[in-house]
Amino acid sequence: MKKLILLLIICNFFNKHLASQNMLTETYNLMPWPKEIKENPAKFTINSDITISITHNNRERVHNAAINFLRRLSNRTGVFLNTGFPLTNKKGTIHITFDTVSKLSIENDESYTLNINDTSISINAKTDIGAIRGLETLLQLVQNNETNYFFPGVNIIDAPRFIWRGLMIDVARHFQPIDVLKRNLDAMASVKMNVFHWHLTDDQGFRIESKVYPKLQELASDGLYYTQEQIKEVVNYADNLGIRVIPEIDVPGHASAILAAYPELGSKEEYNYNIERFSGVFDPTLNPTKDITYEFLENLFTEITALFPDVYFHIGGDENEGKHWDESLEIQKFKKEHKLKTNHDLQTYFNIKLERILNKLGKKLMGWDEIMTTNIPTTAVIHSWRGENEGLSNGGSLIAAAKKGYQTVLSNGYYIDRMLSVAHHYSVDPIGTIELTDTERSRILGGEATMWSELVTPLTIDSRIWPRTAAIAERFWSTQDVNDIDNMKKRLEKVSFNLEELGLTHIKNRDVILRSMTNNQDITSLITLSKICEPLKIYKRNKDGIEYKTFSPFNLFADACVVDAKDASYFNQSVSNFINNPSNSIQVLSYLNTWFKNHDGFIKLTKNPKIKPLETLSRNLSEVSLLLSKAIQNKELSEENLTTINEYIKVLTNPFMDVEVVIIESFNKLTTYCKTNYLLD
Amino acid sequence: MKKLILLLIICNFFNKHLASQNMLTETYNLMPWPKEIKENPAKFTINSDITISITHNNRERVHNAAINFLRRLSNRTGVFLNTGFPLTNKKGTIHITFDTVSKLSIENDESYTLNINDTSISINAKTDIGAIRGLETLLQLVQNNETNYFFPGVNIIDAPRFIWRGLMIDVARHFQPIDVLKRNLDAMASVKMNVFHWHLTDDQGFRIESKVYPKLQELASDGLYYTQEQIKEVVNYADNLGIRVIPEIDVPGHASAILAAYPELGSKEEYNYNIERFSGVFDPTLNPTKDITYEFLENLFTEITALFPDVYFHIGGDENEGKHWDESLEIQKFKKEHKLKTNHDLQTYFNIKLERILNKLGKKLMGWDEIMTTNIPTTAVIHSWRGENEGLSNGGSLIAAAKKGYQTVLSNGYYIDRMLSVAHHYSVDPIGTIELTDTERSRILGGEATMWSELVTPLTIDSRIWPRTAAIAERFWSTQDVNDIDNMKKRLEKVSFNLEELGLTHIKNRDVILRSMTNNQDITSLITLSKICEPLKIYKRNKDGIEYKTFSPFNLFADACVVDAKDASYFNQSVSNFINNPSNSIQVLSYLNTWFKNHDGFIKLTKNPKIKPLETLSRNLSEVSLLLSKAIQNKELSEENLTTINEYIKVLTNPFMDVEVVIIESFNKLTTYCKTNYLLD
Repeated sequence: MKKLILLLIICNFFNKHLASQNMLTETYNLMPWPKEIKENPAKFTINSDITISITHNNRERVHNAAINFLRRLSNRTGVFLNTGFPLTNKKGTIHITFDTVSKLSIENDESYTLNINDTSISINAKTDIGAIRGLETLLQLVQNNETNYFFPGVNIIDAPRFIWRGLMIDVARHFQPIDVLKRNLDAMASVKMNVFHWHLTDDQGFRIESKVYPKLQELASDGLYYTQEQIKEVVNYADNLGIRVIPEIDVPGHASAILAAYPELGSKEEYNYNIERFSGVFDPTLNPTKDITYEFLENLFTEITALFPDVYFHIGGDENEGKHWDESLEIQKFKKEHKLKTNHDLQTYFNIKLERILNKLGKKLMGWDEIMTTNIPTTAVIHSWRGENEGLSNGGSLIAAAKKGYQTVLSNGYYIDRMLSVAHHYSVDPIGTIELTDTERSRILGGEATMWSELVTPLTIDSRIWPRTAAIAERFWSTQDVNDIDNMKKRLEKVSFNLEELGLTHIKNRDVILRSMTNNQDITSLITLSKICEPLKIYKRNKDGIEYKTFSPFNLFADACVVDAKDASYFNQSVSNFINNPSNSIQVLSYLNTWFKNHDGFIKLTKNPKIKPLETLSRNLSEVSLLLSKAIQNKELSEENLTTINEYIKVLTNPFMDVEVVIIESFNKLTTYCKTNYLLD
Repeated sequence: MKKLILLLIICNFFNKHLASQNMLTETYNLMPWPKEIKENPAKFTINSDITISITHNNRERVHNAAINFLRRLSNRTGVFLNTGFPLTNKKGTIHITFDTVSKLSIENDESYTLNINDTSISINAKTDIGAIRGLETLLQLVQNNETNYFFPGVNIIDAPRFIWRGLMIDVARHFQPIDVLKRNLDAMASVKMNVFHWHLTDDQGFRIESKVYPKLQELASDGLYYTQEQIKEVVNYADNLGIRVIPEIDVPGHASAILAAYPELGSKEEYNYNIERFSGVFDPTLNPTKDITYEFLENLFTEITALFPDVYFHIGGDENEGKHWDESLEIQKFKKEHKLKTNHDLQTYFNIKLERILNKLGKKLMGWDEIMTTNIPTTAVIHSWRGENEGLSNGGSLIAAAKKGYQTVLSNGYYIDRMLSVAHHYSVDPIGTIELTDTERSRILGGEATMWSELVTPLTIDSRIWPRTAAIAERFWSTQDVNDIDNMKKRLEKVSFNLEELGLTHIKNRDVILRSMTNNQDITSLITLSKICEPLKIYKRNKDGIEYKTFSPFNLFADACVVDAKDASYFNQSVSNFINNPSNSIQVLSYLNTWFKNHDGFIKLTKNPKIKPLETLSRNLSEVSLLLSKAIQNKELSEENLTTINEYIKVLTNPFMDVEVVIIESFNKLTTYCKTNYLLD
C-alpha cells in the first residue's frame, strides 16, 4: 500500500512536470525542444548596449557564431547595436564559457546550459560546439511586445539524444552550387543538426574534381562539379558550424557517370556508357573482378579522403541488381573460382577490399544497408534506408545491425523526397519501443534526412528540405516524449519563418515560380490554389523515372506547391469543427467563398501553355465550393446539386500538373454531411 | 528645288523608318534595343525538338551559353526538351557560327546578326562574344499565345555603341559573397554589359587575400574576403560570359583598412588606425614619401595583377583630402624638397610612381577623375565620377579627358546608390550634343553604373542594381536616338521580371523583409505602402554617414522599398488623366479606396518596434484618401475637410523610417483641383 502511494506521488510529480513542460511548449517556439527548461521571472531587454564576451583563447567557432548571432539579432529586432563584435578583455551582457575546442567526431559533447537574467545571460558548455548550440537556442527565444524586443527569463539544461543528426544532399541528380549548400548548412546548425552527408556521385554525375582521374569531371559532370578548393571551403564552413561532413562515393552500382569517364572499369566490354539523364536504378556497375578497379578506387579514395577530415566515409553500395555481372562470362567465371555463390557474395568481396583500402587511409567504411551481408566485418557502419517501400520492415535493418554489432544510422522514414507530411516523419522514432542493451543502444548513432535530388533544383531544394527537416532534427535531438504533433507544427511555423533570415528560399521561391508561370501577371489566384495542392507523393510524379530528365523544367506548378499545404490543413480542421457543431460554419464558409471567387481571378490571367492545364482544377474547385456553400447556408441540397457536386469532386481527385488536391476528403465529408442533413426529398 | 524634294524624301524615309522602329519597340521587349531590326512573317514554334548547333572547335563560351539558353528556354516555356545539350556533328534548328574566340579586351567585336525563320534560326558573329550576345537577344524574343511559345520572325543586325559597358560593385563597405557576384554577372550578360569593376578595398575592409601581406585579410577584413582561388573563379565565370573584370585597389586615400593591417605605411605616426564602421570620407592615407609604401604596392600589385588578365587596373585615387599629409612635418618637408606645391602635386607624384609599377606589370593605370592633374601622362585612364553634387559640371571631366588625350569612362550620372529614378539615369548620355573629333570620340570608351554599398547588403543589393541598370546598359549599347522613356519603362518591366530566372532577388526579397518586419504576419498592407514609398535619395538616408554602421540592420522598411515605386507612378498618371478630364475618375478613386481601406489591415498587425513608426504614415494616407475620394465622388469639399486634408498631407511630407511618400505632388494636385472646383462656400 505504501508502495502504491509512493507510485501515485511519483506519477503525479511526473504528470505535473509533463504538464508544465507542455505549457512551456506553447509559450516558447524552441526547436529542437531542450532537455530541461524552467522559467524565471526575469526579462532581458534587447537594446543597443547588448554585448557578447567569450572566455577561452582558441575560440574561432564561437567568435564567428557570436558575430552571426549579433547580425541576426540586429536584423530580427531592428536594434542598432553599438558594438558589432565580441568584446575582448571585458565581460559582455551575454557571457559565453566553454572548456575545450572540439575536434568534430561522434565523441563530441554538445551539451550546454543557458541562463537568462534581467541584465545578464550566460551560456556554459564543455565544448565550443555546445556553446554555439546554446547561442542558437538563445536566438530562438527572442520575443517582443509593442515597444521592445527581449529575452524571457529561462534556465535551460540541454544535450542531444543522438550524436548523429544528419541531412544528406544528393548533388548528383541535380547539381547544387556552393551557396545552396552553405545556406542549408546554416539552416542545419540553426536546428542543431551536426552531420552533412554529401552524396557526390551517381549515375547522373560525378561532382568532385579529381586530379588523378580528371576525366571524371571532364566527361562525367557536364561541367557541374566542385573543385577541391570548393570542397575544402564547404568542409571548413561546416566545421565552423559544428557540422561533420561525410562524403559518399557510390560504388559499385550507380556508376554510369564514372564509367562514362573510365569505361575500362565497367562490367561489360564495348558497352556505351553515358551520363544518365533519367531517374531510377541502372545497370552500369564497376567490375569487382579486375585489379584496375581497386587501383582506381584506392587512388581516388586516397585523393578524396584527404579533403574530408571526418573518419567516416560512405561508399554507397546500394541498389546493385547485378544485371551486368550476370551478363559477363568473365565475372561468372571469377565467382566460381572464388566460390562466391551470389552477387551479394561478390559485392561483399568488393566491400571487404574497399574496407581494407579505407582502413589504410584511417577511415571507417559506411554503406547503405545492402552492405550488411554475413561476412562484412562489424567495423562497417550500416546506413539503414530500406523499409516497406522495398518490401522490408521499417527501420528493421537498423535494429538488426545494432544487435549484430554494427554502428548504424537510420534514414528509413526520413526520405523527405517522398513528399510525405511532417507529421509522418516526426512520428518515426529510430528506436521506438524496442528494448536494447546499452551496448546495442550505443551502436544506434542517430539518423539522417535524405534529400534525393531527382526532382529538385537549386530553385526548389530548400522548400523540399525545409521546414520538415527541422522537425526531424527535433526527433534526433529531443527526448522521445517530445512528440505532440500539433505543438510541433505550431513551433515549426515560427522556425520556418526564421529560416528566411539565413537566406533560405523555401518561402520566397513559390512566388517566383508562379510569376514565371503567369508571365508576371497577378498570381493571387495561383497562390490560393497552391495552398490546397501538394506535389504527387512517393515518386508518382516522375512515373517510371522517365517523365523528367535531369534537364527538364522544374519550375512548374508542382514545384511551387509544398507538402503540408497550409490552407488544406486549416480547412480540414474547420470541416471537422463544423461537423462536430454545425454552428461553427464561419470558417468553412469563408474558405468556400474564397475558392468560389478565386476562379474570377484565374480566368483574368492571359492563358499560356504553362497555366492552361490548371483551368479545370480552378473551375471545379469554384463550382464545388459554391454549391457546398449554398447547401450549408440554406440548409438544403437538391439531388441535382448533389450529383453535380460529386461529379466535380470526382474530377478534382485526378492529378493536375503533377499535384493532388488535398481537401478532397473534407469535401467528401461536407458532402456526406449535407446529403444526410440537408437533402431535399 | 530638286534638292529640297530629295531632302523631303529622305526625311520621309527616316521618319517612316523611325516610326516603324517605334512600333517595333511596342511589340518586342528587347533591351538593349538592337541597332537594326526588321520583321518577317515567320514564326518559329518552340517545342521538344528544338536543338542547337555550333560551328567552331574552340567553343567553350558559346557551348556554355547554349546550355544555359536551353535551360532558361525550357524553364520559361515549360517545354520538355528532348536534347539538353548542343548537337555535335549535326545542324540544329538553332545554328550558331562565329569566326574567332575573343581574348577579352576593348578591341572586342560584339556584333552579331540574328535571323528567325519558320523552322530555323541562325546567329552569326565575328567572335564568340558576339554569338552569346545574340543568344541573349533570342531569349528576349520568346512570346506565347494560349497554346504555344514561339520566336517571332525577325532579322536583326546588332552591335554596341560603346565598348565599355560596366557595373561597379563595392564589396568593401558591405561584403558581397561569390554567389551575389555570379548572379549579377549573369544579369549583366543578359543585358549585354561587359565590364565588372570590382571595388575591392576601402576604409571599411580589404577584401582580397594576399599571400605576401596576409595581415590585410587577417586584420582588415573581419574575415570577409575572397581567397585568390575565389577571385580566379569569379574572373573565369565573368570571362565565360564575355565580361572583363577590372579590379580596384583604392589608394592613397580610403586606406583605413590597409593601415589597420600595416600602420607603418600611414601618413601619421602613432595613429590608431582601425577598420572604419561608418560611411564617409576619412583621413587615413598612405604615406607617399616613404619607399616602403612603393615596395608594398609593387609587391601587392604584382600579386593581384596576376589574378586579373585584363590590362586595365584601377587605383582609385579619389577623395584624398590630404588632412594627414598636412599634419605631417615630414611630408611637408618632402613636398618642399621635391618642389611639390600642393597635395595634388604630391598625389600626382604618387600616381606617376604607381603608373611605372603597373606598366612594368603590363597594366594600364585607371583612376577616378581626381588623378587627372597636369602632369599625369595620357596613358592613364580617367574615370569620370564628379558632377554637380561635387560642384562641377556633370560629365565635364569625361569630355575634358577625351580632349586632353586620355581614354575615359563615365560614371557621373550613373550612381545608382543615389536612389534616383531610372528615367534620370536613362537620360544621361555620355556624349550628348557635344561635338568631338573622331579621335576624341574614340577615347570615350563608355560608362559604368556604380553600386556603392554603404547601404546595401546581399539581401538588398539586387534591388538597388536592378532593374535600373538594365536601362543604363541600353544607354551604353543602343544608339543615342533610342531614348523614349515610357517605352523603355514598358520594356524594362519585362526585363526585370525575366531577371528572376537567373536567381536575382530584386523582386522576391521585398516580401522577405516585410515578413521579417511583421514577424510573419499578413504583409498585404505593408506591400501596399511600399508601392508608394521610396528610400530617401542622394545619401539623405545615412545622415552625415553616421546613422548606419556597417553592421547596422538593413532589413528595414526602406530596404523593402525601391526606386520608381510602382503604384506611385501609375497613380501620378491617373491623377493627370483625371485633371485633364474629370470623367476619368475610376482609376484615381480605385487607388484612394485601396489606401483608405489599407489601414484596416495595418491596424490588425500585432505591433512591434519595427512597424510602429509606420502607423502615422498608414493612418494619414488612409484619411487623406477617404476625404479626397469623398470630395471627388460628391463633387463637394468643405473648408474643414480641406484644412484637414492639407494637415494630413503635411505630415506625409515627412520621412517615415527613411522613406519618402512619393505621391505627395499628386495629392496636392488633386487637393488643388478639388479646392478650385468643389469647395463649398
